[in-house]
Amino acid sequence: MFKTGCPYGTHRVLEPKGALPQGAWKIDNTMEIYDNEILVDVDVLNIDAASFTQIRRAAGDDREKIAAVMLDIVAKRGKHHNPVTGSGGMFIGRVAQIGPALQDETDLKVGDKIASLVSLSLTPLHIERIKKIHLEKDQVVIEGQAVLFASGLYAVLPPDLPERLALAVLDVAGAPAQTARLVHPGDTVLVVGGGGKSGLLCLYEAKKRAGVTGRVIGIGSGANSCTRMRETGLAGTVLQVSATDPLAVLKAVEEATGGRLADLTINCVNVPGTEMASILATKEGGTIYFFSMATSFTAAALGAEGVGKDVRMLIGNGYAKGHAQIALQVLRESKVLRELFERLYA
Amino acid sequence: MFKTGCPYGTHRVLEPKGALPQGAWKIDNTMEIYDNEILVDVDVLNIDAASFTQIRRAAGDDREKIAAVMLDIVAKRGKHHNPVTGSGGMFIGRVAQIGPALQDETDLKVGDKIASLVSLSLTPLHIERIKKIHLEKDQVVIEGQAVLFASGLYAVLPPDLPERLALAVLDVAGAPAQTARLVHPGDTVLVVGGGGKSGLLCLYEAKKRAGVTGRVIGIGSGANSCTRMRETGLAGTVLQVSATDPLAVLKAVEEATGGRLADLTINCVNVPGTEMASILATKEGGTIYFFSMATSFTAAALGAEGVGKDVRMLIGNGYAKGHAQIALQVLRESKVLRELFERLYA
Repeated sequence: MFKTGCPYGTHRVLEPKGALPQGAWKIDNTMEIYDNEILVDVDVLNIDAASFTQIRRAAGDDREKIAAVMLDIVAKRGKHHNPVTGSGGMFIGRVAQIGPALQDETDLKVGDKIASLVSLSLTPLHIERIKKIHLEKDQVVIEGQAVLFASGLYAVLPPDLPERLALAVLDVAGAPAQTARLVHPGDTVLVVGGGGKSGLLCLYEAKKRAGVTGRVIGIGSGANSCTRMRETGLAGTVLQVSATDPLAVLKAVEEATGGRLADLTINCVNVPGTEMASILATKEGGTIYFFSMATSFTAAALGAEGVGKDVRMLIGNGYAKGHAQIALQVLRESKVLRELFERLYA
Repeated sequence: MFKTGCPYGTHRVLEPKGALPQGAWKIDNTMEIYDNEILVDVDVLNIDAASFTQIRRAAGDDREKIAAVMLDIVAKRGKHHNPVTGSGGMFIGRVAQIGPALQDETDLKVGDKIASLVSLSLTPLHIERIKKIHLEKDQVVIEGQAVLFASGLYAVLPPDLPERLALAVLDVAGAPAQTARLVHPGDTVLVVGGGGKSGLLCLYEAKKRAGVTGRVIGIGSGANSCTRMRETGLAGTVLQVSATDPLAVLKAVEEATGGRLADLTINCVNVPGTEMASILATKEGGTIYFFSMATSFTAAALGAEGVGKDVRMLIGNGYAKGHAQIALQVLRESKVLRELFERLYA
């Protein structure tokens, strides 16, 4: 008999009561699933970089001490939610059991190899044994199990792509998926920070969706970033200018577009202070999609008002339906991006 | 002969070079206008509440000392941009001169009484004399002049509405204007913080646009707020629940909608930690409009991903074309809101 669970996993919150699993101090990591949960045999934990660095420092890079810290976190919290950094990571594993309430709602089969796309900071985890610690890759090989809630996101790892390459792309899957939705044929699309990982995926989707009547412009501050955009051929125009200099960006985009500016601007730059450049470079009535986690809500809201710019500004949602398939498909369609990503991230 | 100015007023930035007027330490407040500027004889400064409180404290509520502090700020910066709080305020005045490049682009006439809708923190200002300081109203009556850039927003004060009432509504004009754009006939609209100033204006627009086939639900944490929503009749359903409790909000909205949740959620609550309640209460594929300045970009972005919710999330832009007319029109159309606002804000 299975117990009935909440789709957000609140049935496993032990303290404080009323919290969601991510906000909770401690969750129940009993590996007996509820009717709408998925049990996974975990092979690898990809610990969030900030969290793993903190643990390595605290343990003086001693593998036994690192293992002890990790086991202690999970024993205390029921999840690998680093209490110092507040961050988690993701896991890779094989599906062991699917709750009966989910049987008709998922294509997943027992034995499928999946990566979790929700954070370890909200995932019930049990570690039987730590088998190996890869210091340089933020990876820990374990014997253990984890639970995915009904609302939990995951991706089946594709047989045709190397695992590390797939993981690198899945990490930013929301960006190309949202780009695919927002770009219309004929649009002038500006990708700020187009030479980075998410930026290049966005350039690819933008070029594909804007089509022959559209136009894709990439902005990068460094020479390497601009070279990547040029060599992949994904940006029709590449502008080397710092996104923290709004007037320089405005001038460059005005010149490149004959003063018409961008219909859609996608901001993928992970540095603070790039909101105004995005706002000024976008035409009246246009749209700005902020995927950068360094975005300041108030800088964007007050900045647009201060210059009287009537633009639609979107908060980047890391999830969009089908985002994993869309992101992985880019690597199948684009030989040049696959080669570049294999060199940089695999 | 007029000099040619930049629409964003960068031609008046003295230091640091390359900044926009708001980010600049000092701007040129010479009251000789460029070809695309508007000169205004200023009657009243509405100092931002945080700024005025700071000045009052520093001056020990002594009117002469307050005047000295204000004159000193403007002498040093060319604008009333409080260096301690970083905030400004707005002005009321009469149009004195319109630059020739703007003559065909504006309906404004010399002599029109206007309120500025951009911050004093970016507005060139010259104070001839401080005539009166209203301590309790954050208002200072002056003899002086100010300059509006081509991109600067303003509203002509309507002859049929009391000045203080118009100002109170203009202060949040973006909220009802954006609501008017986002609501479709038949929508279920949730207004979080519907009993506040911007919330009530949003409720009005939501009810009007959703129409007889739609539905408007207001959420408030306090009894007074809920009473205001009920007495105005603007929300068909009023739920008293705290927006910082996501599960309680989810449960209340599920019950009220038979599990269908909201097509559009408008967040007007100026307290932190209300992102998750807005995300959970909105249906898959729905839209959330964050008007609250207390919104955290990362809490919204990571929160939606954490619960696997595919929702469109918008950053509230304080400006939308025609926002002043839309907001003032609400007070003409709604007798009950006009009476309530006259009691609360005029």
